[in-house]
Formats: sequence, structure tokens, C-alpha cells
Amino acid sequence: MEVLNSIANLLKNVREKSPLVHHITNYVTVNDCANITLAIGASPIMADDKKEVEQMVSLVSALVINIGTLNERTIESMVLAGKKANERGIPVILDPVGIGATTLRTDTVRTLINNIKFSVIKGNMSEIKLVAGEKVEIKGVDSAASEEGAVQIAKDLSKQLNCVIAITGAKDIITDGDRVLYAQNGHKLLGRVTGTGCMTASLIGSYCGANKDYLMATAAAVITMGIAGEKSMESLKDGEGIGSFKVRLFDNVFNLTTDEIKERGKVRYE
Amino acid sequence: MEVLNSIANLLKNVREKSPLVHHITNYVTVNDCANITLAIGASPIMADDKKEVEQMVSLVSALVINIGTLNERTIESMVLAGKKANERGIPVILDPVGIGATTLRTDTVRTLINNIKFSVIKGNMSEIKLVAGEKVEIKGVDSAASEEGAVQIAKDLSKQLNCVIAITGAKDIITDGDRVLYAQNGHKLLGRVTGTGCMTASLIGSYCGANKDYLMATAAAVITMGIAGEKSMESLKDGEGIGSFKVRLFDNVFNLTTDEIKERGKVRYE
Amino acid sequence: MEVLNSIANLLKNVREKSPLVHHITNYVTVNDCANITLAIGASPIMADDKKEVEQMVSLVSALVINIGTLNERTIESMVLAGKKANERGIPVILDPVGIGATTLRTDTVRTLINNIKFSVIKGNMSEIKLVAGEKVEIKGVDSAASEEGAVQIAKDLSKQLNCVIAITGAKDIITDGDRVLYAQNGHKLLGRVTGTGCMTASLIGSYCGANKDYLMATAAAVITMGIAGEKSMESLKDGEGIGSFKVRLFDNVFNLTTDEIKERGKVRYE
Repeated sequence: MEVLNSIANLLKNVREKSPLVHHITNYVTVNDCANITLAIGASPIMADDKKEVEQMVSLVSALVINIGTLNERTIESMVLAGKKANERGIPVILDPVGIGATTLRTDTVRTLINNIKFSVIKGNMSEIKLVAGEKVEIKGVDSAASEEGAVQIAKDLSKQLNCVIAITGAKDIITDGDRVLYAQNGHKLLGRVTGTGCMTASLIGSYCGANKDYLMATAAAVITMGIAGEKSMESLKDGEGIGSFKVRLFDNVFNLTTDEIKERGKVRYE
Repeated sequence: MEVLNSIANLLKNVREKSPLVHHITNYVTVNDCANITLAIGASPIMADDKKEVEQMVSLVSALVINIGTLNERTIESMVLAGKKANERGIPVILDPVGIGATTLRTDTVRTLINNIKFSVIKGNMSEIKLVAGEKVEIKGVDSAASEEGAVQIAKDLSKQLNCVIAITGAKDIITDGDRVLYAQNGHKLLGRVTGTGCMTASLIGSYCGANKDYLMATAAAVITMGIAGEKSMESLKDGEGIGSFKVRLFDNVFNLTTDEIKERGKVRYE
Repeated sequence: MEVLNSIANLLKNVREKSPLVHHITNYVTVNDCANITLAIGASPIMADDKKEVEQMVSLVSALVINIGTLNERTIESMVLAGKKANERGIPVILDPVGIGATTLRTDTVRTLINNIKFSVIKGNMSEIKLVAGEKVEIKGVDSAASEEGAVQIAKDLSKQLNCVIAITGAKDIITDGDRVLYAQNGHKLLGRVTGTGCMTASLIGSYCGANKDYLMATAAAVITMGIAGEKSMESLKDGEGIGSFKVRLFDNVFNLTTDEIKERGKVRYE
């Protein structure tokens, strides 16, 4: 399948180029983000002080911004880092964790999208709707309840921000405004381990840092985490649960082959 | 056994209600706290900025405050969050990690108990004595050396603060000032993994977020961690140690059944 | 072998004395640092607020400073803690993570070495060269390209700062300015898990907290992590990768015996 062959090639590129991926992220899942970045073959850098983020951005191939545990100090650093990344033309990924839960988060996302040109924004349906609410008109409260409505919101937001939008869920929707990709790997146990969403953003950063097609890179990241989740689930023995599952996620991303992507990947164009 | 049947029911409630548990906690064990909350069937939220903690508290069923890595920024957030939680009538759990080691920690605990009505305070004997020292008269230096003395301190503190007090140790003591529960599950290897105490506080938050009887909910949490510790220990193979033990803790909390609580739980009233 | 017998004895001392090791470290790998400290038999304390670090230092046997995720608040705490540790005569270990990547890191290391007498500075070749660049003249750009050049830089820096210098790599170089030890345990997979360098610094802190010969203590720590890495690698089954490898690191440090040090240790004097 054409798409899966492309994605398999993107994985090869990550491993050959081993891009540096700068994260400004939350302190809850930061260790997992670093290790998943290493697992896929890229290299993580975590730094969040305003006095050094611009210099760090000068050294890297991608920047991931995650608002999981915001505070005033790091918001300023996010803006500085994002602007510098834009200046350099490297991809910037946004994970708007928990937008809508608090005014601080919603305001911060507004500040970020007003100051930074993002390459990819990834969230669940509720998060993406709230990001969209800042920028595009959503017609009717129920418009996102249908898959069709969700796709339309994602496409509109994508065009408005000139940015790949990824809505993660049982079926992932990824669009650059024109093309729409649907991905269906994964397992619901991924939702029972903290940070699998954050780690997916790290994988997006890793793939985008080594590949120019950000739509396909985002699909590759989502498929990577999905296949790793499936394989980790399949490997669980009696008495094992989310502890062992999480350990295997790193094993399975580390060991992921291009053949596995081609055999197990479930992704299609609209 | 009556108590164990009750505790088994509390576990069912956690899994049915999946309460949101807000944590303001340390950056050392925060990931483990999030995952143990997910393992038992509840949902964690970590947020510590003063600009958003009150709104976060408005969304949740319980608040856990842990002073493991204090700083000025988060102390203010703890007070704001705790007051809001009191306003809403949701349970607030305090883990006074390392009180007495520094003036900052002792002062912070004083500030917290003077501003916030806690539902449960959990610590080891030394920590609880120091919390008590802020509020109740301890008769003689050796009064806590005996189990009897320890129980009296816990009861007095409990009455003074109108709060469940849990003293964790080889034998856990849990009291609401009238009733006293003794729990004896666990294994000493739990003391060789960082964060098992913090995780117990997360479990208390999870149980209290889904159940109104905070004394029993606290006993349930302590028993849950204790049984998970025993099972993890039993499962260790040659060459395995605290790395594998920690992974299994999450597995065993995740897989804990009500039958296991009834069969393995060691808890009795005074 | 004489050196390995000595190192085996140092391990015994760590387990007998269980020294408290205070860390001011980054939020990426802090949990792993705490657990590796527990695994070797010491006890970790993490605290970074300027209001409490001096009191914490008063309680401990060693201090580890790691600049992995710097910010203004913690830099001040590092200086206060380091000065207090010097006053008390306890060992202070520096891990200058990422020095040279940003001005903030380079300036901070300069501030630290100008204000604090370190007992051990550990880094990779590039980091140690940059620390040396602050203090000793490096003759010619290529002087560190050869092993001979590297050893000379380490010795000069060691004499200048009156401090053990450890350069980690495929072959580790450890010197107190006079004696030079070469250690060669380890596996390249250690470089694919975040925090193995930070954990080595924690092990150095643990060994130095229980032993007066800091040169040998540093070698012991490096050998400990190296042997654990080798054993973890050997134990990997099909389908396992960095997730399982990391879990086993803790298992293997926890289970390390003095006999294993004697049998597997690869360390020799110049």
C-alpha cells in the first residue's frame, strides 16, 4: 500500500538522521517523552528557561510544545522558542493538553497560535474543537458529534492556521486542509497509561524533524504509537497490566520495523 | 469479614465512578502518582499554577497535596486549591513529606492546616508526630515510642483537625478520632522504591473521590498498596529487583479484584 | 585484582551506611536518580528551594548537582547548597549536562565552579573539555581527539580544581590529577535510555557519601552502571528493547554483588 510504504520510509529517515527534538513540556510525562524519542531513533532535549530556549532551538530539528503543566515562567519560554523555531523554519508541534479546563490553558493556546506558526497541532476531539473555537466558526453545537463534522472542523482549522491537524481517538483524523488521512491502529489500554498522548506528540516531533511531509510524518507517528500499543497488548500475560504494558510500549517502538508498518498499519486517504 | 467486604465495595465504586483526582505534588514521583491513579480506575489531573488550580479543583472529586518538592510558587497554589476544595466540599488529602527536615516544610504544613480543612492526613510515624506537634500536646518524648502512644497521638490529632489520620508503617494505624483501624498488608521492599508513599496518597484520593467514608477509603488505599506490594514481591524471579517490582505494582493495582481484597486483606478494628 | 577488591568494599560500605544523598537535579530523570540511589543501597533526598536546601544539606552525606533543566530559581539554590556542603566537608558532585549548548549552561557551570569546591565532576568528553575551557588552557583544537590528550586535559583540570574528573565514554577515564583509572564496562544501549548519565552521577554521590576515596568511589559508580548495563543487555529476550532494559538496570544495580564486581569489573590504573 502506497501510504504505508511512504510511512515506512519516514521511519528509516528518523533512524538515519536521528533529529534533535527540543521539548518544552510538562513535568508529569517528560521522562516518557524523552525515552520514546530515543526509542524511535531521535534525540530529545528538554529545556524551558527563557534564557536558553532560543539557543537550544538553534541546535535542533523540531520543537514540541506541550501545555500539560503550565506556569508563567514556561509560557514565556514557549513563545520565545516557537518564534525562534519559525525563524529557522523548523517544525513546531503543539499538544494543547487540557485546553478548556481552565482559562489559563485556553488563553495560553490563543497566545501560542497568535505568536507561533505551528506545523502540527494534535489533540483529542474536544481539544481540537476548543482550539478551533479560537479561530474558526463551528456551525452548531453538534457539528463535531459526527465524523463528518469533525473532519470539517479539522480541515477548516488546518486551512486557517496553515498547519496539519491531528484528531486522535479510536479513529485518528489527520489533515492538511486538503488531504485527509484516517488511521486506526491502537488499543484502548493506551488511555490507561499517562503520557501516551504526550509521547505521540514527541513521535510527531521526531518524524517531522527528519521528514518534510508533515501530514505523512504525523500519520507515521500516530501509526507508530498505535502499532506499539497493539503489540504491547498482545504480549501481556496473566497478571500483567498497565505497568508491563508501558514498559513494552518503549520496547515495541524501539523494535518497530518498516515491515511491521507495512503489515500492521491501518491508514487510508479519505 | 465485614470490613473487607466494605473495602471491596469501595473499590467497585472507584472503578464505576472513575473520579478525577487533582494533584499538587512533587516532580520526583508525579508520573507514578498519575499512573497509580489510572491503575486503580480513577483519573489524575496535575496542575500547580495559581492561575488555574481553583478552576481545576472545580472539575474534580478529590484533591491531593504533597509537599515533596516545595517551592514558593506551589505553596500559594496549594492554599488556593485547598480552600476551593473546602468550599466545594470535596475531600482534601495531605501527604506532609519530610516535615521536620526543614523549616520550610514545617512552616508550610502549619500554613496548610491553618488554612485548609483536610479530610485525610497520611504520613509515617515521625511525620504524623511532627504534624501533631503543631496542634496537640504530646506528653513526654517517648509517648510515641509505643503503639499505644502512637494511637493516642493519632486520635488526638484526628479530633483536633476533624480529619482522618493514617500512620503508615509495618502496621498501619488509621483513625477518625473514634474508630481505629489496623492494617498489615505490605512488604518492606515498598520502602526501597521511591514514591510508594506518594502513590498511597494518590490511592487515598482516588478512594475518597468515590466514597464518602474517608476512614474506610483510607484503609482501602493502604490495603490496596499493601496487597499490590505483596503480590509484586511474590512474583519476583531470580535476578529481578526493584525495577521489576515497581512495574508489577502498577500491574497488581490495575488487576486487583474485590475477591483478592477479601482474601488477602489484613485489617481489623481496635 | 587489587582495584576490584577495593571497589567491592566500597559497595559494602554504601549498603552498610546507606548515606543520604541530596540531589538538585533536572525534572526529566529525577525519578530514575532517586530509584538508582535506592537500588545501590543509599537514600535520596530531592529538594531545590533556596529556603530549604541549606538545611537539607545539613542532614546528608553527599550532594549531587545536575544542570539538566536549569532555571534561575534552582541556580541560586545550587550555589547555596554547594557552599553549605563545602562548609560541612561533605562531597559535592557536578554533572554539567549540556554545557556549551547554551550560554546559560556555560555561565552556570562557571558560577558553580567559582563558588563551590567540587569533589567530583563527571561528563562526557565534550562536556569535560568545556568545563576545562573555563579553567585550563587546552593546547590546540585537536588535543582532546587523542586519548592521551583527553587524559592530559582531565589531569590538568583535576589539579586546577583539586577535584576528581571522570570522562565517561566507551572507555571511562577517571583521575585525581595523579592517579588515572580506566574503566571499560558498559554497553552502547545505555546511551539510548535517558538519564543513565544522571544516574551515574547519583551513584557517584552514593559511593562518595559512604567512602572517603573519591577517585575509587567514582570508579566504583561507573563500574556499577557499566556492569548493570551489560547484564541488562544480556538478559534481553526477543522483542524486548529499551523499556525492559531500563527496568533491568534497576534490578541489576539492586542485585549487584561484590563477587560480580570482582568477576566482571574492567578497571585498571594507567
